[in-house]
Amino acid sequence: MNSFGRIFRISIFGESHGECVGITIDGCPAGLALSPEDLLPDLERRKGGKQKGTTPRQEDDFPIFKSGVFNGKTTGFPITILFENKNIRSEDYSKQRSIPRPGHADWVAHQKFGGNEDYRGGGHFSARLTAGIVAAGAIAKMLMKEVSIIAEVTAVGGEADIEKGLQKAINAKDSVGGIIECRVNGLPVGLGEPYFDSIESVLSQIVFAIPAVRGVEFGTGFAAARMFGSEHNDSIQNMKGETKTNHAGGVVGGISNGNELVFRLAVKPTSSTPKEQNSLNWDTKQTEDFSIKGRHDLCVALRAPVIVEAVTAIVLADFMLLEQKIKRVL
Amino acid sequence: MNSFGRIFRISIFGESHGECVGITIDGCPAGLALSPEDLLPDLERRKGGKQKGTTPRQEDDFPIFKSGVFNGKTTGFPITILFENKNIRSEDYSKQRSIPRPGHADWVAHQKFGGNEDYRGGGHFSARLTAGIVAAGAIAKMLMKEVSIIAEVTAVGGEADIEKGLQKAINAKDSVGGIIECRVNGLPVGLGEPYFDSIESVLSQIVFAIPAVRGVEFGTGFAAARMFGSEHNDSIQNMKGETKTNHAGGVVGGISNGNELVFRLAVKPTSSTPKEQNSLNWDTKQTEDFSIKGRHDLCVALRAPVIVEAVTAIVLADFMLLEQKIKRVL
Amino acid sequence: MNSFGRIFRISIFGESHGECVGITIDGCPAGLALSPEDLLPDLERRKGGKQKGTTPRQEDDFPIFKSGVFNGKTTGFPITILFENKNIRSEDYSKQRSIPRPGHADWVAHQKFGGNEDYRGGGHFSARLTAGIVAAGAIAKMLMKEVSIIAEVTAVGGEADIEKGLQKAINAKDSVGGIIECRVNGLPVGLGEPYFDSIESVLSQIVFAIPAVRGVEFGTGFAAARMFGSEHNDSIQNMKGETKTNHAGGVVGGISNGNELVFRLAVKPTSSTPKEQNSLNWDTKQTEDFSIKGRHDLCVALRAPVIVEAVTAIVLADFMLLEQKIKRVL
Amino acid sequence: MNSFGRIFRISIFGESHGECVGITIDGCPAGLALSPEDLLPDLERRKGGKQKGTTPRQEDDFPIFKSGVFNGKTTGFPITILFENKNIRSEDYSKQRSIPRPGHADWVAHQKFGGNEDYRGGGHFSARLTAGIVAAGAIAKMLMKEVSIIAEVTAVGGEADIEKGLQKAINAKDSVGGIIECRVNGLPVGLGEPYFDSIESVLSQIVFAIPAVRGVEFGTGFAAARMFGSEHNDSIQNMKGETKTNHAGGVVGGISNGNELVFRLAVKPTSSTPKEQNSLNWDTKQTEDFSIKGRHDLCVALRAPVIVEAVTAIVLADFMLLEQKIKRVL
Repeated sequence: MNSFGRIFRISIFGESHGECVGITIDGCPAGLALSPEDLLPDLERRKGGKQKGTTPRQEDDFPIFKSGVFNGKTTGFPITILFENKNIRSEDYSKQRSIPRPGHADWVAHQKFGGNEDYRGGGHFSARLTAGIVAAGAIAKMLMKEVSIIAEVTAVGGEADIEKGLQKAINAKDSVGGIIECRVNGLPVGLGEPYFDSIESVLSQIVFAIPAVRGVEFGTGFAAARMFGSEHNDSIQNMKGETKTNHAGGVVGGISNGNELVFRLAVKPTSSTPKEQNSLNWDTKQTEDFSIKGRHDLCVALRAPVIVEAVTAIVLADFMLLEQKIKRVL
Repeated sequence: MNSFGRIFRISIFGESHGECVGITIDGCPAGLALSPEDLLPDLERRKGGKQKGTTPRQEDDFPIFKSGVFNGKTTGFPITILFENKNIRSEDYSKQRSIPRPGHADWVAHQKFGGNEDYRGGGHFSARLTAGIVAAGAIAKMLMKEVSIIAEVTAVGGEADIEKGLQKAINAKDSVGGIIECRVNGLPVGLGEPYFDSIESVLSQIVFAIPAVRGVEFGTGFAAARMFGSEHNDSIQNMKGETKTNHAGGVVGGISNGNELVFRLAVKPTSSTPKEQNSLNWDTKQTEDFSIKGRHDLCVALRAPVIVEAVTAIVLADFMLLEQKIKRVL
Repeated sequence: MNSFGRIFRISIFGESHGECVGITIDGCPAGLALSPEDLLPDLERRKGGKQKGTTPRQEDDFPIFKSGVFNGKTTGFPITILFENKNIRSEDYSKQRSIPRPGHADWVAHQKFGGNEDYRGGGHFSARLTAGIVAAGAIAKMLMKEVSIIAEVTAVGGEADIEKGLQKAINAKDSVGGIIECRVNGLPVGLGEPYFDSIESVLSQIVFAIPAVRGVEFGTGFAAARMFGSEHNDSIQNMKGETKTNHAGGVVGGISNGNELVFRLAVKPTSSTPKEQNSLNWDTKQTEDFSIKGRHDLCVALRAPVIVEAVTAIVLADFMLLEQKIKRVL
Repeated sequence: MNSFGRIFRISIFGESHGECVGITIDGCPAGLALSPEDLLPDLERRKGGKQKGTTPRQEDDFPIFKSGVFNGKTTGFPITILFENKNIRSEDYSKQRSIPRPGHADWVAHQKFGGNEDYRGGGHFSARLTAGIVAAGAIAKMLMKEVSIIAEVTAVGGEADIEKGLQKAINAKDSVGGIIECRVNGLPVGLGEPYFDSIESVLSQIVFAIPAVRGVEFGTGFAAARMFGSEHNDSIQNMKGETKTNHAGGVVGGISNGNELVFRLAVKPTSSTPKEQNSLNWDTKQTEDFSIKGRHDLCVALRAPVIVEAVTAIVLADFMLLEQKIKRVL
């Protein structure tokens, strides 16, 4: 299913080189002042246009509202937003059609969908689908003005100095992975449930929906596995629940505890590396050397922070509605 | 919500020191030969009775079938399984009632549920709820005899030699965390979807439902963030989709590719450490030193592999039913 | 699936002649004072013990709380309630095993579940499963003290004088159908949505879950199909939205309008009629004459009003939670 | 929520006088040959252009595929279809803005959405939203070539001679209601579940999503309430489950029994009657006489059969996928 959420619910659709990509947001409260321009800052960040290490494709990611907004305000009904596809060079991709690209979904898509998938530019698997998610995230943020969500790249290619990490990839004529950290402040205590609807469960579900994410950790995360209990436990300091340390990353028992929510995710290197590769050609049924043409990011992690913020905002807005911390009509 | 799954759907209930804990499994195919005894091996592993580092509490985790099984076979209707609570010493826990235990859900539960939560032994937050999940997992495994799911502790307290890690904790009179790795073989190609129902998304949602899990990674995971694309890409070798390396851990584009599914998770140290701690007393509104009595695991990771296998089996059985790889009537 | 609801969510399980029937209620607000005794009045009505036209089976429908209630209050976690099965005479039913009973699910269950279904007394199809639904309904009513929900039998066997209708059936040594009307007062304006989550949609989904219901109509219902628009339209009289007539039955555009919510449902005659019947014997593969033994209601409609009230309360409590008219912690 | 379905899942959006109306269909199997032209016959029936009693508005209901179809076949990913709005005269509606139209959702929408709703032509409540539903229904029918679904108007204004019923309305300068009957042949035995996912439950949920529907009955329906059990029971004749009569309308215990599925629904008279009415003016806070301008159907039931077929097909395709009677890849 291409939908996510219980009350604030998103559904994505579209293909990289089809007519458009888009999203429908159902359950957004009525009465939110909203224009396409409100979404542009986050959409610009996703495009990452002038950033070193991101592709020059400029899709004019302008959000076209098709429903759910009237007289400049949300109506409470589904908001459908389209992003038209322009500036497409499908021929670049069709050249590789006989070689399912390593690291991409070409091979599995072909098996699962019986060859009916739109393979151009990754089709429905393309990271271009995240444009809609970023739009929904920007709306979710507008519903929670008191909450601050900030995601940043904290390492590229193993280097905390990100420029250095990128230069390593440029020198190697290769792509490279990275780490993103997200910090949320201003959350109320009490969002989330134990078990399947824990903050970690619901957040990780949508975080792994971001293409190229390979790992997620909350608070101290994997390092916690090397710690003693007495080190890891966060001592509660006062009746507001503030803790001395924040190894838990703001979530205990699946529920927000009012401290900063912190999580990190690992992004693999862009699968479309400029380097020559060897893999199967399903026409000849033999492996062969080849290289991938087209425009690709050196490091997909660079564009991802705004997407991470978006999915976080989507999850939190949903929890806030469920816990009656956001009203149905503003 | 305390439910998970689309076709093979589980719902958990109960409290650590209440009448019972239990689970209802809806959507299990009809015609599976099933008796309580089939579940005992995995339930025994969860209890971890004789293992160093696990608590001596022996709950007689015998599964009582209340519905859904007739003449020794599943009927296709909901299977409700209870585990009665015996051998309970609530007084151990009530002593700490005025001090919300660090690392536990005491404080958030109190805030979220307005003091109505059953606090005895963690109540509904208790890892005892995983007895039902292990039972459901054992049933899910029986539906997929051709699939092998094996989870193991691969490190304790940062030591690959697990005995050594445990001894460190014993020496320090403290609890300690660990790493679990799960490997699945025999999966068909094509389970999962891109985005919200990717294998990573759905698995991580339920993996984070296991108390104490702080991080999840697939394939090479966090290490992928330090790699070049040419290193990380798995070269496809033949028409079966076998790859030379398995950095992807068996999932590409959210979809199983027929190679071994591999993921790891970080388990924090047991929150109930034998060590003295300092935290808030909500009666005095001051922090104070205290120590936790009662029976607790040195390292909760030790009992967790069978739970990890269970949640993995639950997810995979659900995907297999959705993809029509398991029949509705056996 | 045997679950229903979005926030106030119920899951039923059990078989007529198995260990028990039961229900789990997830999403009930924390802090509701609740004891088994609170449920007895409605459960008594369901049993209909002394009523002419209902079966003498007295199951001691005592609700056993297994989870979710602590110190006499709901905790906010799943409430599981069991009703043990006693006083069972399975042999009455097994006699008819080779003849799938007309009007019952015997034949379809056998086909769908491959012969694995528990056929004793209807198994999971038995109206005994409604005990749990009535319990959940009683809890839902307690959450909405300002709302009055009253369902009544308004006709039996085509007679508004219900005694007369029953006597007709007794004279004919047959069973008979009936009509139930439900009226709800005190609802806020604004529950429900247009389309799939309209009050009519959601209510009818659960009303048809009551065994033997064959039709549902809202307000003027089927009679509306014979009316002119000018007759059927309800003229709004004042700023509270009170209407002169109530042909709409309190719902317009799927949304409650603050007037009395009115709907009616048709209940078929009890399928287990005392009369001799002719139907297939699947052993001989021939039709044959037979008659059904055992204890059965003359008119199942007589017990149904409390079930209708229950499902109505369940739906409305769910809408009230979604619309933030009931708090998550009381 | 504006979504419906478990595997074959639809989501509708749009407003009558906004940019467009549309639908997204998720979960449609891959490999179905599909073009916009395939949908035109059913869409034409919905417009009912030349029929007496339907409005002359000709919206050019041409379905624009935005995603999910590639090289003339479905890809297995979400299919989004838009219908652009043209030929709109919003001024007709704005004239009545101060008088919430009786029978319409104007008043409840205003209360529920705080005045943010798009009121033009009914906005999201408009029957124009059913264009998307009809498109999805046409696709669902294509997935089940062996199943025949036929809905027809069987009465208008209480007259089985439909022309006569319409003439009555024309003479009275009023609108009028009607009855629709739907008959499905070729269904396999075993679709549906007892309780909440019974065929009746799921069908009625979506049938009541059709604007103006006020009642639903299956098989003999409301008439069953006047019958004896021995009359109503359908005697099974042979090992295929064929019954002598079909009072059950093809569903027993919520499950299809292989006989013809039959249900009927009541459609209220068009709320926008040409007749003068008296109702509240919320500016003056007084009732007043007024009449509704604009183009409206004499009898909305006339356009509804194709919508009834569509929702039926949507439900059945979903059940067929769940029961593995339709493959995920064709």
